[in-house]
Amino acid sequence: MCELLGMSANVPTDICFSFSGLVKRGGETGDHKDGWGVAFYEGKGYRSFHDPIASVNSEIAKFIQQYSIKSTTVICHIRKANRGRVCLENTHPFSRELWGKTWSFAHNGQLKGIKKKTLKHFMPVGTTDSEYAFCWLLDQLKQQFPIKPSRKKVLWLAIETLCDEIAKLGVFNILLSDAENLYVYCATKLAWLTRQSPFSEAQLIDADVRVDFKQETSKHDVVTVVATEPLTSNEQWTTMAKGQFTVFSAGKKRYTNLS
Amino acid sequence: MCELLGMSANVPTDICFSFSGLVKRGGETGDHKDGWGVAFYEGKGYRSFHDPIASVNSEIAKFIQQYSIKSTTVICHIRKANRGRVCLENTHPFSRELWGKTWSFAHNGQLKGIKKKTLKHFMPVGTTDSEYAFCWLLDQLKQQFPIKPSRKKVLWLAIETLCDEIAKLGVFNILLSDAENLYVYCATKLAWLTRQSPFSEAQLIDADVRVDFKQETSKHDVVTVVATEPLTSNEQWTTMAKGQFTVFSAGKKRYTNLS
Repeated sequence: MCELLGMSANVPTDICFSFSGLVKRGGETGDHKDGWGVAFYEGKGYRSFHDPIASVNSEIAKFIQQYSIKSTTVICHIRKANRGRVCLENTHPFSRELWGKTWSFAHNGQLKGIKKKTLKHFMPVGTTDSEYAFCWLLDQLKQQFPIKPSRKKVLWLAIETLCDEIAKLGVFNILLSDAENLYVYCATKLAWLTRQSPFSEAQLIDADVRVDFKQETSKHDVVTVVATEPLTSNEQWTTMAKGQFTVFSAGKKRYTNLS
Repeated sequence: MCELLGMSANVPTDICFSFSGLVKRGGETGDHKDGWGVAFYEGKGYRSFHDPIASVNSEIAKFIQQYSIKSTTVICHIRKANRGRVCLENTHPFSRELWGKTWSFAHNGQLKGIKKKTLKHFMPVGTTDSEYAFCWLLDQLKQQFPIKPSRKKVLWLAIETLCDEIAKLGVFNILLSDAENLYVYCATKLAWLTRQSPFSEAQLIDADVRVDFKQETSKHDVVTVVATEPLTSNEQWTTMAKGQFTVFSAGKKRYTNLS
């Protein structure tokens, strides 16, 4: 299984603290040694960093921990390969452009028979089930909506329905984003928490690192973090249910199908 | 005007030496201060680094100079903005997936009226003429060839024809790649050189840096570098002609329309 980390914030925020915890699971406190990647949105802009080696040994991961990239939406993934060999093109997050937005995607789980589904608009570059599922999801959206639907809820329900369909094929824990929204689908394991005023201290589980968010934030900041397993030991994480689909934007929960 | 740097090699090769020269032009020996980006292909895999600030001040650019990423095809761009504000989504190289390959593109020049052309499959994320031209080029290829043409020459001639058409709208110096090939179209200014055995020393123009390629290479290595202006002072660069379209792969020139 892989591990996921996502963030949605109302102001550009760095993910160094959470990322430091996750990176340890890529070969030290966890055995997810088969590469890692992180995608940052800055407005409509998108940049990602990928490395097909263990995150604990990655010079790029060290750089990202030191160099604070401030972003409103982040998707991060550390990989333990089950389908698809270890190489750059099989390293999450994957990205594609749809309706003039860069969509990105990371997945934890295995899917059986996903490659039997027909693709029309988007083709995978690598050989993972995950990238294939991402292509199919966007393909279906593009077929249903040649132009982006003007009502957000229409789009969200379409994504939820497609996630439900893919989830029938196996385990489908995902983070998906179109820059503005962070879409989260939980098949088996995901948890989230929102940090907002009054801020307090947080202690990482995987590294001896504490942060006092009072010192790092302003009182209007709202930041939600989503992860496969809680990253901190002294905060209240909300565990997601099986089949739960949730949309976050600007740090806040905007929609969930189970409430 | 922006500056371009491309590389095509038959073995994974780092571009640290040439990149060190180019970076100086991003705010020190040149005034291309409006961001920079570099794309590396490793097999079918693709990773890019973008920064919307001057390359001479960029921590990411410093990291790339120190950390040797070995690649067979590289596209690099430093930007002096003329159309489109300075921000991440307007920073070259741009990338899109077509036929299961990641295509990337960087452009030097201005185009008048490019945005009047109709797009069907690919939409720009940012506001530059350059990204629009890239989307239109891929759009046309996808319309002409829903499936990738099996004969390379057919694809190359199609790209050449599309470049000729775009070039009517202004200045169109470009680097384009589909992982395997580096496509180069020269409207006004591009030069290239191929390094192969017997290797010798090279001296950067923009920095006091020399490399002895004899120490860095094996005798079968073939590496072609393409740049807006020659990067070294003691090697023989070939200046491209106006309207010249050239395809390099695995370090060698495979096709040119003017020979």
